[in-house]
Amino acid sequence: MYCREKLLPFDGMKEECGVFGIYSPEVRNIAYSVYYGLYALQHRGQESAGIAVTCNNKIEYYKDLGLVPEVFANGKLDLLPEGDIAIGHVRYSTTGENLAINSQPLVFTSKIGKIALAHNGNIINAHELRKQLIQEGVLFQTTIDTEVIAALINKYTKDDIVEGIKEASKYLKGSFALVLMTTNKLIAVRDSHAIRPMVLGKVDDDYVIASETCGLDAVDASYIKDLAAGEILVIDSKGTKSYYMEGAKAKSCIFEYVYFARPDSVIDGCSVYESRKLAGKLLAQKFPVEADVVAGVPDSAIVSARGYAQESGIPYNEVLTKNRYVGRTFIQPQQSMRENTVRIKMNVLKSNVKGKRLVLLDDSIVRGTTSKKIVKMLRDAGAKEIHLRISSPVVMHPCYFGIDTQTYSQLIGAKMSEKEICDYIGADSLKYLSIEDLVETAKSANRDFCIGCFNGEYPFNVEKRDVNKNRFE
Amino acid sequence: MYCREKLLPFDGMKEECGVFGIYSPEVRNIAYSVYYGLYALQHRGQESAGIAVTCNNKIEYYKDLGLVPEVFANGKLDLLPEGDIAIGHVRYSTTGENLAINSQPLVFTSKIGKIALAHNGNIINAHELRKQLIQEGVLFQTTIDTEVIAALINKYTKDDIVEGIKEASKYLKGSFALVLMTTNKLIAVRDSHAIRPMVLGKVDDDYVIASETCGLDAVDASYIKDLAAGEILVIDSKGTKSYYMEGAKAKSCIFEYVYFARPDSVIDGCSVYESRKLAGKLLAQKFPVEADVVAGVPDSAIVSARGYAQESGIPYNEVLTKNRYVGRTFIQPQQSMRENTVRIKMNVLKSNVKGKRLVLLDDSIVRGTTSKKIVKMLRDAGAKEIHLRISSPVVMHPCYFGIDTQTYSQLIGAKMSEKEICDYIGADSLKYLSIEDLVETAKSANRDFCIGCFNGEYPFNVEKRDVNKNRFE
Amino acid sequence: MYCREKLLPFDGMKEECGVFGIYSPEVRNIAYSVYYGLYALQHRGQESAGIAVTCNNKIEYYKDLGLVPEVFANGKLDLLPEGDIAIGHVRYSTTGENLAINSQPLVFTSKIGKIALAHNGNIINAHELRKQLIQEGVLFQTTIDTEVIAALINKYTKDDIVEGIKEASKYLKGSFALVLMTTNKLIAVRDSHAIRPMVLGKVDDDYVIASETCGLDAVDASYIKDLAAGEILVIDSKGTKSYYMEGAKAKSCIFEYVYFARPDSVIDGCSVYESRKLAGKLLAQKFPVEADVVAGVPDSAIVSARGYAQESGIPYNEVLTKNRYVGRTFIQPQQSMRENTVRIKMNVLKSNVKGKRLVLLDDSIVRGTTSKKIVKMLRDAGAKEIHLRISSPVVMHPCYFGIDTQTYSQLIGAKMSEKEICDYIGADSLKYLSIEDLVETAKSANRDFCIGCFNGEYPFNVEKRDVNKNRFE
Amino acid sequence: MYCREKLLPFDGMKEECGVFGIYSPEVRNIAYSVYYGLYALQHRGQESAGIAVTCNNKIEYYKDLGLVPEVFANGKLDLLPEGDIAIGHVRYSTTGENLAINSQPLVFTSKIGKIALAHNGNIINAHELRKQLIQEGVLFQTTIDTEVIAALINKYTKDDIVEGIKEASKYLKGSFALVLMTTNKLIAVRDSHAIRPMVLGKVDDDYVIASETCGLDAVDASYIKDLAAGEILVIDSKGTKSYYMEGAKAKSCIFEYVYFARPDSVIDGCSVYESRKLAGKLLAQKFPVEADVVAGVPDSAIVSARGYAQESGIPYNEVLTKNRYVGRTFIQPQQSMRENTVRIKMNVLKSNVKGKRLVLLDDSIVRGTTSKKIVKMLRDAGAKEIHLRISSPVVMHPCYFGIDTQTYSQLIGAKMSEKEICDYIGADSLKYLSIEDLVETAKSANRDFCIGCFNGEYPFNVEKRDVNKNRFE
Repeated sequence: MYCREKLLPFDGMKEECGVFGIYSPEVRNIAYSVYYGLYALQHRGQESAGIAVTCNNKIEYYKDLGLVPEVFANGKLDLLPEGDIAIGHVRYSTTGENLAINSQPLVFTSKIGKIALAHNGNIINAHELRKQLIQEGVLFQTTIDTEVIAALINKYTKDDIVEGIKEASKYLKGSFALVLMTTNKLIAVRDSHAIRPMVLGKVDDDYVIASETCGLDAVDASYIKDLAAGEILVIDSKGTKSYYMEGAKAKSCIFEYVYFARPDSVIDGCSVYESRKLAGKLLAQKFPVEADVVAGVPDSAIVSARGYAQESGIPYNEVLTKNRYVGRTFIQPQQSMRENTVRIKMNVLKSNVKGKRLVLLDDSIVRGTTSKKIVKMLRDAGAKEIHLRISSPVVMHPCYFGIDTQTYSQLIGAKMSEKEICDYIGADSLKYLSIEDLVETAKSANRDFCIGCFNGEYPFNVEKRDVNKNRFE
Repeated sequence: MYCREKLLPFDGMKEECGVFGIYSPEVRNIAYSVYYGLYALQHRGQESAGIAVTCNNKIEYYKDLGLVPEVFANGKLDLLPEGDIAIGHVRYSTTGENLAINSQPLVFTSKIGKIALAHNGNIINAHELRKQLIQEGVLFQTTIDTEVIAALINKYTKDDIVEGIKEASKYLKGSFALVLMTTNKLIAVRDSHAIRPMVLGKVDDDYVIASETCGLDAVDASYIKDLAAGEILVIDSKGTKSYYMEGAKAKSCIFEYVYFARPDSVIDGCSVYESRKLAGKLLAQKFPVEADVVAGVPDSAIVSARGYAQESGIPYNEVLTKNRYVGRTFIQPQQSMRENTVRIKMNVLKSNVKGKRLVLLDDSIVRGTTSKKIVKMLRDAGAKEIHLRISSPVVMHPCYFGIDTQTYSQLIGAKMSEKEICDYIGADSLKYLSIEDLVETAKSANRDFCIGCFNGEYPFNVEKRDVNKNRFE
Repeated sequence: MYCREKLLPFDGMKEECGVFGIYSPEVRNIAYSVYYGLYALQHRGQESAGIAVTCNNKIEYYKDLGLVPEVFANGKLDLLPEGDIAIGHVRYSTTGENLAINSQPLVFTSKIGKIALAHNGNIINAHELRKQLIQEGVLFQTTIDTEVIAALINKYTKDDIVEGIKEASKYLKGSFALVLMTTNKLIAVRDSHAIRPMVLGKVDDDYVIASETCGLDAVDASYIKDLAAGEILVIDSKGTKSYYMEGAKAKSCIFEYVYFARPDSVIDGCSVYESRKLAGKLLAQKFPVEADVVAGVPDSAIVSARGYAQESGIPYNEVLTKNRYVGRTFIQPQQSMRENTVRIKMNVLKSNVKGKRLVLLDDSIVRGTTSKKIVKMLRDAGAKEIHLRISSPVVMHPCYFGIDTQTYSQLIGAKMSEKEICDYIGADSLKYLSIEDLVETAKSANRDFCIGCFNGEYPFNVEKRDVNKNRFE
Repeated sequence: MYCREKLLPFDGMKEECGVFGIYSPEVRNIAYSVYYGLYALQHRGQESAGIAVTCNNKIEYYKDLGLVPEVFANGKLDLLPEGDIAIGHVRYSTTGENLAINSQPLVFTSKIGKIALAHNGNIINAHELRKQLIQEGVLFQTTIDTEVIAALINKYTKDDIVEGIKEASKYLKGSFALVLMTTNKLIAVRDSHAIRPMVLGKVDDDYVIASETCGLDAVDASYIKDLAAGEILVIDSKGTKSYYMEGAKAKSCIFEYVYFARPDSVIDGCSVYESRKLAGKLLAQKFPVEADVVAGVPDSAIVSARGYAQESGIPYNEVLTKNRYVGRTFIQPQQSMRENTVRIKMNVLKSNVKGKRLVLLDDSIVRGTTSKKIVKMLRDAGAKEIHLRISSPVVMHPCYFGIDTQTYSQLIGAKMSEKEICDYIGADSLKYLSIEDLVETAKSANRDFCIGCFNGEYPFNVEKRDVNKNRFE
């Protein structure tokens, strides 16, 4: 268990995660179900994984850095006891070193007994809340805002944890999709803006909570509903019962559709796959170009590329293949080496590129460096023209609600015009989806979205103070 | 280092692997290049990985069970010294436990000094050769046929290793694509039927050998040539020089195009991608069907599905998504659990399936169990019809030359008619590519192929004796 | 990081530990010094080890289950940064599984910033304090009473941590020798009964705190003083300054001399070696016996055996040798096997035993099972008579202050008379040192001792309630 | 599995090891017995450990770097199957890195089937034999001379392995105490000079082979006999049967008594404990000195110190205590640090030293650096005089037969006179036991000894060539 303070700055802003929970009327090998659920949610976090199981008024847990199969290999999954309630968590992979102590679920003893808590989201006023709670006597042992949420819930809980959650939520500024469990209840919470996704499902007599529907599918659970904004859903021996925070109103994150969620998930009633395909079609309508081939950067832009191809009539073809084995522990080339990481992750299908005019779809441009390398690889392989089409608007602002879109200084969209970006990347043309069209792609979700990373308008008033201080000392 | 005898039976028949070698005129951090090369060849073997480096008349190596990034994580890659020649190996993943001692390269002291040897292929008379070599005094410490090849080369080498290889090859019945290194030479060998692939490339002044061209691409090397059948290519300070076995004649494995190779590789002048696409087109011509959607089982049948769609005019769409994180250490569900492995590995895009008549492409059917589960998943998701199209002929015979296509008893194609298989799987129709059409897809390789797994005619006279005894005691 | 509730019951009572701290006027590779210090204190705890380092207003730490050299092997020690203050901790080895999360130092954010805390002792009212602190909003994440101490200090700290410690100590019932560090101070605390030992030393300009003088010796520090009962010693850039709790009065643990401390340590001015030798002499005076050989059970009773031999004139000789390699991870024999653990740990020097009448010294008898096995081994080797002499009184009561002397039900001295114990063990005679004589052996410490495990009189009023409830839920 | 050529030079000369074997008439959990036997022999080798088990005509094994409990921790011991024959090996700890591939037992397929071989000793003509065997076609994959022995036995075996061993032994120049097992026989071999020890024991119906009697004790086996020089002892279902090499004549290593063996072992009928005690007595007779205290350097010189004390009448007392936890993975202090390794391993009992004239016994002086540090520590603690008495003669020559006594350049005895050594170390006087007296201490073994490290006369004609070339390329 190692803790390095110098890692904390990187720590604060990368909180996109996946959560999973299950309530079974009978004691069984429930940890396995959480394992498969987390597996399906692995794309939401590759940094750490953890599972906590309730059995006989006790909570046991195992968590560590690594992918789900890595963390629970070598008999670790079987260390966990049988139980009737269990929750799990996967955490986003960052490039730096991470801290085992910051893995989740966070297990603690509250006023009403043992609690395990898993959180997906980001609390922008966590620093201030933490300072205040420290003055009130709380000991903070980690650097995750999950600990702040736990302390706040505990503070406002008397005997009824739902009251504690309701009250705590009044002070939490930011996104939080929580799965928590006491020794006899499974509770799912979606913040009052419903920023991060969360669904309820059922299989036989078990209730299942997951960040995305693909988590339900993994355990063969059928979809019941997405949690509403501000919903506190309690599952216990009496069934499910929902409570609601006051003044809730959805402002869900639209970036889930663009990049983060798995294409086979349906979020708030809108299929991720369909929304990506429509993005490609709209790009074809708005930004047509004469070309021989439409292609997508794998994996996330394949679907929108197909949408573009379908709409434009230009044939779709693959031009890049991805190495399926590039993972967490990959050793970066040394500075001086000729090999570049993009080449190792992706390779060009030369015969599909040579002499061709390409339309290349990508999901977004954050720093621009990867796009630049891909364009170069394609030119080296003989592409005659490369027209880049981005299935989201220009990312001009950081995200403070759980997706790691860097600081202003790292966002190429905050520093350059579209024309300058096109030149920097070396494409023949570059076009972004408009904000209006992006919203159009997710309209079946039938709600307002947070599009702060595109237009700077967030569901909360983000003060510089909150952000700069988002580091726990 | 653990050795369990009971694992040996599983051991003998699974020798599909990837090999890589590099010769540099100057001493440098050469192990990194092999690392990236093996990374690109990871699909050829996920069981174990190893790298050996020559420097100053010495050979140092590191090898272990696991994926390339797992084996060389935690500073292991940096244990290896700088050097001017290096080779590497990845080994096929089997379902059982494996043995670190069976990892490659095999490093040994020969009559002419230290040698490191990496082998892709399978020697069907290995058992007999081994018995005879034991009588001659050789100590066998592993259960891989690479050790038999090493002993045989050593036996026939006086001072000239090329002579030793030439002579040894007369006794080796089976496939072998070898990369071996002495303390001053890199040598690549392709057996006299050129069963397994092997290419030569160059980057700056370095010569590179790889099982597939995607290995060359990973280190930015440009393709020079595929090795000819029976070619022994020696690379040293004087450049490259080729020697040839007598009576060589290509009978290359056609299954590389069907399933094993990466789509971005070009093998013997024929693009794997193009051959798969053509397979889809030919299936569309020969076995048309009225349907709403064409789809492929990811990842290997995506390309042929697109070929089918293009030819038939039926729109291509995705119906299955694959979990990108399912790897080696995945914990199988317990017998009694409702979760099934296929569901965890793949999920259905329900909105693309519901009420639709599907044409589903797959690369091959071996045991039929996975196909059966996929068909059921699609029916559960509301597919109206499911027409299976297989981009290879019926696998009716085992492979003895390095691809793990099981024994007769496990091959559904050896036991049932096409109609029976279709019923077993639960599809509405099932059609296979004909042998002639499969050969057509690879005709640009301009050579004869081994199609023994389809028609039972092998480049060698396979005696039952060879096969049943293929177990070292 | 694994937490199993069922382990908690065993967890509560085994808190004997070693602590170490160092304050240097300059930033240097200070973790190495703590490493050597902990090495010297390893006998005080083999379960887990940890080091925390302060540098630039930050605290980094590494801790895990295992011996000091195991925990910090493989480059882990070098993960820690250079710094000017550092503390470390080793924890007592229990027979069951243990919890990484319970390793120390405990690092947390307090009202006055980051603090690292290492604790040797046991708080008997920890359960009640914890319950009350939970009601006040504190989140408890571990099961160690160190966390209770931390919360209590934090609670009573306004800006001055010394005030916080002083106030907290009023509520802490039990033993606690603490080393804690803020980002600019090293603080050592010895409870108001001075139950557990703690010394201050100096080397060059560095101040060193250790549980025993052997920890000072390890870093070449010269002894300055033992901390007084109730002393709070603050070391910072201005030097050392001591504060005192009110009403402090030493009741130090006498068992440190009997068994726990290293023989080369001097505790509160009394040499452990000399006290053990004197115990042997007093046993010889009070309980003489005709015999051929005096021997001691290694390692702890070797010194008292020599005292007995010297006083009685009967020659000392070795009759038991100890396997130097028996450690933490030793695999116990299966029930059905003929091998027994004592035989594996110790062997008889047959030629010194055969036909001899032995006086065998041992330090104490807790459960009696080991003594029984040793006596049998000696009889099997041909001992004619075996006279057991114990260099401490009968252990009739549990210890609640940090030494693991079991519950009443496990103490043979609580259940049987001396005569019955002698019969059970199979010795020819059995004599214990009297309480008065034991106190005599440590008289140079010049203080009162806690001899609760012998006479049931503890420095605190131990209520059954405290003990039975000593399990955190 | 890592192999670094540069480690080979250190590899050749450090072959002191422990071997263990067991033959049971029935299949049982036999690996556990080997585990306890190796535990008892751990002092003979701390570098690597391995166990091989025969069951149903198969041999399974597990071996790795580390101490016995480390290697077989985490369920590794239970990987091994039940069986009726098993052997084990521990290998000497060197200071450098070591190679897992060089762990033993060596398991290979011979002309007569699977064989596992464990070797204690050193073959001085291994390099030449290896060169010749390579020419004959043997593949060498490790750098241990065990592989040479294996190849030689295999070479000379037709159907009868005893004949093969007999014939091979004619060519092996050096020491070898072997335990080997086929799938139905356990065979123990002691070279024709009986250089290294080996005993046979029995427990119930099991036969046990061990390097020392303490290995027999560990599994409760009673001693039957020491193997004779040149004895080949075969144990199978028909019982035991011995064969003998021609011209055998004992020249056993006397250093086993001085330092290597455990004091509770009896080697060739002579108790190690008694021989050490006698060495102390003889030193007292020959080199008396006026002093206050006699002490020994722990652990090996404690017994001889007691002999000196008894003979001289000067009281014995402890002046140095040893840290019981210093092990294999200890991190050395950095060059610049004030801590020294000797201080961390041993501490001075100051009260026993201050103002005293000491006689300090040590077992031998090899490089002299440790003695120098100990003398300094004692002077710092106030010793008035320090008279060093060494319980063996001056080590003036390297050992080529399995004990790591360095090269000439590292032997202080080969470079300095007794007077110069005394000055270098800083003692007031220094005396060594004479060769005659050393032989006297082991006279009950009733045989000739190899005393080559003292007088340069070895049982074999050691040619420089053998030694310098003792490195396998």
